[in-house]
Order: sequence, then structure tokens, then C-alpha cells
Amino acid sequence: MILRPRPRHRRYAILADGWFANRHAKTAHGLIRYGRDEVVCVVDSTLAGRRILEVMPHLERDAPIVGSVEEALELGPTSILVGLAPAGGRLPEEWVRSLRTASDAGLEIVSGLHERLAPRFPDRPVWDVREPPQEIPLFSGEAFRVEPKVVLTVGTDSAIGKMTATLELERAARRAGLRAEFAATGQTGVVIAGWGVCVDAVVADFAAGAAERLVLEAARSLPDLILVEGQGALGHPAYSGVTLSLLHGSCPDCLVLCAAPGGEAFAGVPRPSPARAARLYEEVAALVKPAPVVAVSLNTAGMTDEEAAAFAAAVSDETGLPAADPFRTSAGPILEAVLEAPKNPPPGCMKPI
Amino acid sequence: MILRPRPRHRRYAILADGWFANRHAKTAHGLIRYGRDEVVCVVDSTLAGRRILEVMPHLERDAPIVGSVEEALELGPTSILVGLAPAGGRLPEEWVRSLRTASDAGLEIVSGLHERLAPRFPDRPVWDVREPPQEIPLFSGEAFRVEPKVVLTVGTDSAIGKMTATLELERAARRAGLRAEFAATGQTGVVIAGWGVCVDAVVADFAAGAAERLVLEAARSLPDLILVEGQGALGHPAYSGVTLSLLHGSCPDCLVLCAAPGGEAFAGVPRPSPARAARLYEEVAALVKPAPVVAVSLNTAGMTDEEAAAFAAAVSDETGLPAADPFRTSAGPILEAVLEAPKNPPPGCMKPI
Repeated sequence: MILRPRPRHRRYAILADGWFANRHAKTAHGLIRYGRDEVVCVVDSTLAGRRILEVMPHLERDAPIVGSVEEALELGPTSILVGLAPAGGRLPEEWVRSLRTASDAGLEIVSGLHERLAPRFPDRPVWDVREPPQEIPLFSGEAFRVEPKVVLTVGTDSAIGKMTATLELERAARRAGLRAEFAATGQTGVVIAGWGVCVDAVVADFAAGAAERLVLEAARSLPDLILVEGQGALGHPAYSGVTLSLLHGSCPDCLVLCAAPGGEAFAGVPRPSPARAARLYEEVAALVKPAPVVAVSLNTAGMTDEEAAAFAAAVSDETGLPAADPFRTSAGPILEAVLEAPKNPPPGCMKPI
Repeated sequence: MILRPRPRHRRYAILADGWFANRHAKTAHGLIRYGRDEVVCVVDSTLAGRRILEVMPHLERDAPIVGSVEEALELGPTSILVGLAPAGGRLPEEWVRSLRTASDAGLEIVSGLHERLAPRFPDRPVWDVREPPQEIPLFSGEAFRVEPKVVLTVGTDSAIGKMTATLELERAARRAGLRAEFAATGQTGVVIAGWGVCVDAVVADFAAGAAERLVLEAARSLPDLILVEGQGALGHPAYSGVTLSLLHGSCPDCLVLCAAPGGEAFAGVPRPSPARAARLYEEVAALVKPAPVVAVSLNTAGMTDEEAAAFAAAVSDETGLPAADPFRTSAGPILEAVLEAPKNPPPGCMKPI
């Protein structure tokens, strides 16, 4: 099973015609802000002539926005990214034409769509990011024994900022001179890192095994920290299985809880409080291996600075843990808590509870 | 998505050459003891001339054991079952020859193997029991509103008797004059019921959706009880994701905890006590919808009657719940507890906790 192919340096053109400024374009935005690879341009005819930072200053990396794939080709990309699932699920003919133009010019197609694109472009390079690797083994317990400390992000809900928290934590670790490996488990994370597994696309029996393989692969470079991107939430009825496969399969030593204000999560199910969520994640993790929640990463989007500070204080008070929005302020307090957490022994060495 | 094809009456020949008495032949044994369909014979040349009940009296249903598929064909089967995964995973040429003989004679092949057999027998009837249905939707919350009471079996470990407990509970319910639907979630259960989904073979994102569809399908006949077969265990690192997808996806009103004595579960992970497991199942279920554990179903295989009674008393004492081995004694106390449990409202009607 090849989890991390030989790294290649990509120069991306990002296909986002008409929706670059749409908040659902999160794979495009994530690649720009956090990606290891070059971004030579965005293709969006509705914003042609402008630049990324004019439209989305928080993405922190600039490139021109052009009006067509033909113009993009002049900037020398190696790859074209299509990251937004079309409404209705069916790929519009226009997108297929754009991708065909790029593919005919020799570009690799990189797609985070549910629909696999490889069959539409036979004998052309296509990276279907959501396609899981072949022959993932069952969880074995091997990852109990990796040397680096393993950190997993979990959440009070899905789509609450687990990927962002993980990537901001990685940045903070690198700035502090630590070697950190980001283990990507979702399509945007995988595009950003250039490798990983979309765990929710793996057959359920092998989801924990996939999480374990990710950690084993990340451990090979002997980093100081392995930062595993979480998925879903323990209380989200549609995705809790994926969440638990990651919680047990990645064998974390500690957890960072991601939380946001509010309310109802899904299908009438109320979102648990950060304190309740933290306690349950710890108890369920401890069935296999202790993994305390050491900090809360907040998503305070849409709040004023005052509101965000008050929310952080309230969550910190409720949970007894450091709480910070790493995007708005700094991942520093979260990193500090992670570095203080102990590396936990494999279950064979644990005392029964 | 077709979950329950039009029921057909099968007359099974069970292919178990050399391993009918092996304890791993649990699909064969389960079909004989609990199956809705006829069993015309077992094919095992090492036991030819004997009868099922001579070899395995607890299977409660008799049929001849014959020495070859040719002999089996004379008894008029419609279907041939191959239920044991071969050591090493690769189907031996001998089995393939036997299946080909049966298939050439017009029999349907029914297989619980991981390897799909349909591609080996093109244009012939093959039921690959582990093959999930096409286009399972995501969990939607629709099953929160089914009318019948939904009961799910959970366990302190995997392979601890959840299927048996569910089927014995179904028998007890039918004997009490109740209409009960068994919702099968594993290969043996699906062969027994003639329909269902192997939830661990579903892509992780859709595992909870599959559990929900099973409950919705079972609810169509307006039974008094829907009895959902559980899988894995909340503390089993390889399978906990599947377990939680069932715990949330099937929207149970109450749980029956399956427990056995001992020890270490997997990869050095200690098995939780019944009381600890019961509390955690309840707390994690309650993130979505309350589902109290109402009884403990014990697996006392290998114990004397005295040891079994002492174990039941100890578990009942520890958990404060009725505890019984439905296989050794009776599922009566478990059924009683299930019938007393309330039907729980959907989360929208619940008070926040």
C-alpha cells in the first residue's frame, strides 16, 4: 500500500469559475493559505484581472486571477485543481471542457470531488484525492508504539474548524523550531499536504486501519509531533463512526477539542457543551489508550474581538483548559498545552482502569 | 436502493467440506439454527453419512450430511452456501470446482466471503452477502420517527454473542406473540434473515445511513419490535467506528449489552467491565438520543451451570440490571426489560441535557 508517493512539486492553477469567493470553495482556499505547493493562478472569469489578496486577504498568499484555462496555461502550471462539489452532484459540461483543455495541454487533474474523474480522462494523469489506497490493512495496534507524540483534533460538531486548528498548530510548531507532520484525513487536507487518506471514503471495517497507517507513515520522518486532522464529531449521528475510527485508530497521546458557539448540530440533535464533549472524548479514548483533552481551539468567525475574548474566557472557565482561536489570535497556548502533555504508553503497559 | 428484495424461499445445501464441526463455520451453524430457509443437507466428506444433530445437537434442526455436491444435488437444493473464509483468504481450487458443479446445475451461490464471487461466475445467480447495496444515502434523521420500538445489541467486546442474543430475543418475542423484525448487519445475520446489510463493508461515510435504512425497512411491516444486530464494540479499536455508526444510525430506544467473562480484548487493550461499558454506551448514545441499557445478555460458553449462575448474579449485581444467557437458559428476562423500556422521542422533542 503506497500512502505517500514520492513528493512532486506541483504548480497549481485553481479552477473556480464563478465561485472563488464562495465559502464552500474551501479546498481552493485551504490550498492557497496552507498548501506546500505553488499556486500560479486562480481561474474565475467573474473576478478576472484581480488578485487573490484583493478578494480574500486572509489567504495570505497572492497570485493573479485569470479568466480562462487558456490564460492559466501561459503561467506554466503542472496541475489543475477542481475542489468544489457542484450543486446537484453532477459535473457541468463547462467544467469538463475546461479540464479537458488543461489535460490536453499535459496538466495533471487534481480533484476532490466524490465522483472519480480518472475514468473520464483515461491515460491522462488524474489524482482523485478521495480515492482510498488499495489494500488498507485492519487496525493492528502497531501505532501504539510510534515514538513521536500524536495529537488529534476532535470537535463538538463537524465542520467546526478541525483542519484549520491542526494546520495552525503545525505552523506554530514549525515556528517554534519543532518538526511537525500533518496527517491529512479529508480532501482539503490531502490536497494541502500532498498526501493522506480521506478516511470517510474508506470501507468502515478499515477506517481505523487507515488512520493507523497514516500515523505510521508520518512517524517515518521521526518528527517531534504528529498532528492528525480529525473528522466529524462523536455526537454527529452521520459521521460519528468516522470520528471514532480516528480516535482509536490514530492512537493519540492527547486531544485538542475544537468548539464554536451554538446550538443545534444536525437533524435536531443539540450540540454538546465543550466540557461534556471533552469528558466523553476522554472516556471513550481511554477504553483503548488514555488521551486527555489538553486545550480548546475556538472558531470565533463572525464575532467581534470582544465577543471572541469573552467566549474564550467562558470556555476556558467551563473546561479548565486553555482556549484560543488560533486563526484570530495565536495557536501558541494550544501548542504549549500539547507540548506539556505526556507521551502515553501502549495499552499493554497500562494499569487497568 | 433495494434493501430487501422480494423474499424467495431457498432450499440450502451448505458447503462445509472438512470443516462443518469447526467453530469458525458460524454462518453455516447460524443458518441451521436460526435461518428462515430450508436446509436440505450439509456437504462434508469427512462426516458423510451422519446427520447434523448427531454432530451438533445444539443446532436444533436436522438434515443429512453428504459427501459431495453431486449427492447434494439429488436432494433438490435451490442454493449453495459457502460461509467460511478460507485460511489465507484465497479460495481453494477445490471449493471453486464444487461451486462450479452446483452453479452448472442451476443453483444460486450464496457467499459470505470477503472476496466477491459474482465476477467468477458471470451470468449465473450469485448472492455476495457482503456486497453493500448501491447508493446508500447519508444518515438523515428519518429513523428518529419510526413507530416500533428499536432495540440494539452492543457488547463489551466484538465476537461476544450479539447476533445470538438478538436472534434469541427475536424467538422469545415471537413466542410471546409479538411481531419482531430482526435487522441483520453482518454476513451470518444477513444469510439467516435473507436480507440486511453488512455494515462493516459500507464506505465509512455511509455506515450510519445504512443502519438507518435497515431500521426504516424493518419498520415497514409495522412490527412491535425492531431488533438490530450490533457489531464490534465501543472499545475495540479496529471496529469501534462500525459500532458507533450503528449506535447512532439505528436510533435505538434501548440497548442490550452483551458480555462474557475475561480479559484482554485485542492488541493488549483490556476489556471494560459490563458496568463501565453500559455507562459509556448510554452516554455516547445520549449525545444523539437517549438509549438506556436495559439488560445484559451473557455468553457463558464453557462454564458449568453453577459458574454461569454465579457470573449472571455478579454482573446483575454490578450493573443493577437483569442478566441472563439466552442460549443457556432463556431470553425471557431480557425481553421483559426491553418491553418495559419506553419508546424515546426524536431529539427535537428532547430537553437539552
